[in-house]
Amino acid sequence: MSSSTMVIIGGDAAGMSAASKIRRECPDTHVIVFEKGEHISYSACGMPYWIGGVVDSDRRLLVLTVDAARKRRGIDVRTHHEVVAIDPVRREVTVRQLGDGTSFQQPYDLLLIATGASPARPPIPGLDLPGVFTLRSLSHAQQIYHFLESRQPRRAVIIGGGYIGLEMAEAFRDRELEVTVVEMLPQILPNFDPEMVEEVAAHVQQQGVTIHTGTRVTAIQQDNPGLAVVTEEAGTLPADLVLVATGVRPNGELARQAGLRMGQTGAIWVDDHMRTSDEHIYAAGDCVEHYHLVLEENAWIPLATSANKGGRVAGENMAGGDARFPGILGTAVVKVFDYTVAVTGVTEQAARASGKFGEQGEWVGSAVITNDDKAGYWPGAEPLKVKLVFDRRDGRVLGGQLAGKAGVNKRIDIVATAITARMTVADVGMLDLSYAPPYSHPYDPVQICANVALRDVGR
Amino acid sequence: MSSSTMVIIGGDAAGMSAASKIRRECPDTHVIVFEKGEHISYSACGMPYWIGGVVDSDRRLLVLTVDAARKRRGIDVRTHHEVVAIDPVRREVTVRQLGDGTSFQQPYDLLLIATGASPARPPIPGLDLPGVFTLRSLSHAQQIYHFLESRQPRRAVIIGGGYIGLEMAEAFRDRELEVTVVEMLPQILPNFDPEMVEEVAAHVQQQGVTIHTGTRVTAIQQDNPGLAVVTEEAGTLPADLVLVATGVRPNGELARQAGLRMGQTGAIWVDDHMRTSDEHIYAAGDCVEHYHLVLEENAWIPLATSANKGGRVAGENMAGGDARFPGILGTAVVKVFDYTVAVTGVTEQAARASGKFGEQGEWVGSAVITNDDKAGYWPGAEPLKVKLVFDRRDGRVLGGQLAGKAGVNKRIDIVATAITARMTVADVGMLDLSYAPPYSHPYDPVQICANVALRDVGR
Repeated sequence: MSSSTMVIIGGDAAGMSAASKIRRECPDTHVIVFEKGEHISYSACGMPYWIGGVVDSDRRLLVLTVDAARKRRGIDVRTHHEVVAIDPVRREVTVRQLGDGTSFQQPYDLLLIATGASPARPPIPGLDLPGVFTLRSLSHAQQIYHFLESRQPRRAVIIGGGYIGLEMAEAFRDRELEVTVVEMLPQILPNFDPEMVEEVAAHVQQQGVTIHTGTRVTAIQQDNPGLAVVTEEAGTLPADLVLVATGVRPNGELARQAGLRMGQTGAIWVDDHMRTSDEHIYAAGDCVEHYHLVLEENAWIPLATSANKGGRVAGENMAGGDARFPGILGTAVVKVFDYTVAVTGVTEQAARASGKFGEQGEWVGSAVITNDDKAGYWPGAEPLKVKLVFDRRDGRVLGGQLAGKAGVNKRIDIVATAITARMTVADVGMLDLSYAPPYSHPYDPVQICANVALRDVGR
Repeated sequence: MSSSTMVIIGGDAAGMSAASKIRRECPDTHVIVFEKGEHISYSACGMPYWIGGVVDSDRRLLVLTVDAARKRRGIDVRTHHEVVAIDPVRREVTVRQLGDGTSFQQPYDLLLIATGASPARPPIPGLDLPGVFTLRSLSHAQQIYHFLESRQPRRAVIIGGGYIGLEMAEAFRDRELEVTVVEMLPQILPNFDPEMVEEVAAHVQQQGVTIHTGTRVTAIQQDNPGLAVVTEEAGTLPADLVLVATGVRPNGELARQAGLRMGQTGAIWVDDHMRTSDEHIYAAGDCVEHYHLVLEENAWIPLATSANKGGRVAGENMAGGDARFPGILGTAVVKVFDYTVAVTGVTEQAARASGKFGEQGEWVGSAVITNDDKAGYWPGAEPLKVKLVFDRRDGRVLGGQLAGKAGVNKRIDIVATAITARMTVADVGMLDLSYAPPYSHPYDPVQICANVALRDVGR
């Protein structure tokens, strides 16, 4: 593929991973990245920590500057350039230069769609009022930061109690705002099973955050000098700042208009080589769905980890390689004040609802234990809650969840690795894991849970 | 196996795991545990931390008291009882009561040998002088503790720079002793590859510990009022206390005298059901060798983790079950002052020496990276060194080592799980592991290392 032209739409994790990989493998290739925003390759996951003051400058979130991408990696990065159409027959894209509004056609040999995702806009009047924000791009973060610095708001209402909502609750508390989280569903962190969230929710409230679950926002109104968040269940909540953190949606419009196959999730369908239904077009990142290793069907779980890996696989294949993206588990970890919560694979609820483990989910087993994260006699040992979800027929591990103040983060990855290898709870119980009193037990808490689960296998 | 008599020799991790398992599965069974010492089921790994003052009482190290084992679990525990012979034909053991020196015969239906290991006694004159200690049992720990409290020694010399030697160096420093570690081999932590130990050794020295590697102790002498440790390479080292931490040897004498098959390692041979060459005799814990999942032959690596699991498997099988012990990786983690180091599988040195990966070890590949343990912009991010050892033919992971001040402990278990599943470095690079800036990177450092390793696979 030397001397060919590779066009990449989107300069974030997936797009830049692919661009870098192509340039490394095929230095002769012309790689053009069109990015409609100002920044490429920044740590979106770090934005709440800059806003909250843990990280001292937004510049520290930049992984790769435009200048470095051009000079050091030889990638033809063009910011403020928006691709507005793909013509798969002529193999060209229409690009609008956001500076002067002019457009041009750019031919490609191979194309990568890495358009990411955008904040979901729930059907609530008032989303465009001043003081109402979403947080997806670095520009969004800068807007929030500037508002905090210039307006000194006292009261923040966050709509949505997922990862971003809770990370931002902490950020706002770090800046000494009064914080209220409104979640439509019956619990915060809705992608965890309920019993994994109880202590965490109590902890969040102890940190001075008011939580309203099962509460639907019907409108955001101007209420000079501030805003009013109107709910059905919790009345009207006064706010100086409102963050809408109700999830994201895949940016699949370009692909859809180009006639590419879309998945049932609404995201772009790709094969295990990250190729779309058009052999000259690849896609990666938050705009695509991935094969889920437990559900054994495609799922849309937008995470930076998958975007990086998917982009790398796409880039390797666009460079003439034969790389395969094996699939996802939706493994995620989030800091919630002093707690850490983590999940991999499917929750018990999701396993039952999937219909994959008995029509009524009757083969879904689960075990929950709480144990010290390290030797009980070690100073500062903290309770660690572990849940494993498994198939009761053969004991295969389907999912894991962890919550606690210590020892959560890399333990979830033991479970993720075990699920990938299709291990059973019996296998996990017999893994030769590390032990020393400052860190664990002779049986790791994950194994203690696996051994409890074992009693319910084959019965 | 109801109403039968199960005799267990040794009341520590393996013996008590088996006893508890048998009683749970077969409540009618008479389970007798003969323990020659005073204590059962204590956390030997916690002893350095009691001696150093991190743990405030030796009572906190007791996992299960004799009284609780008898009353709550119905195990017939007999301390101060030493089994001095096994008669496999008559199926009985000869037991000496250490109190009055009398002996008796105890018949068994099934026997478990869980005699553990004893400190190696290097051929050094003076090992029996007052002030010279080993650390294996709680009684040893109590002797050291008492000596520290009553004699207030100022200078400790530790012979041996392995796990115990370094944990005790920290304990003695915590008590403000001057500490010197003498290691015969060219490096401390000899079961790590050299480059993984350099920073750790420097750190130990920064903590005020003098290290003499490549130094052989030829004698320990009385040098009133203290002791003198005589070396060839480092002269004579004055000491008020000497700890001999030169490893342990399996207690296989009873098994050998009973004619049981011994392994090439010198430990007791068992099959994957923890059964010895006699169908009525099982063995588990530090006295047995285990199947090594990477070397694919038996190895002797005495660790509490394997003792617990092996004991449990033996107990389940003695109770009529069909449990299998899959094998070991020698996974271990140790705190060395502010550092944590961890290992699983084989080191590069061991892989080369094994002859299993090319006669000259020519198929052994390795990759080493250093990266922040969490997002580089996160306050307190610490360098983390990761090494993966792999088979260059197919990329299969053979071993992993980690060293750093943070993020080591459970990360090694990702590698251990991957090795157990016979994953390649390519597989590891594509694992769906967790990420958030306070904890990791979009590619975990283990994956960054795996992706570096990948360049050397199949070439």
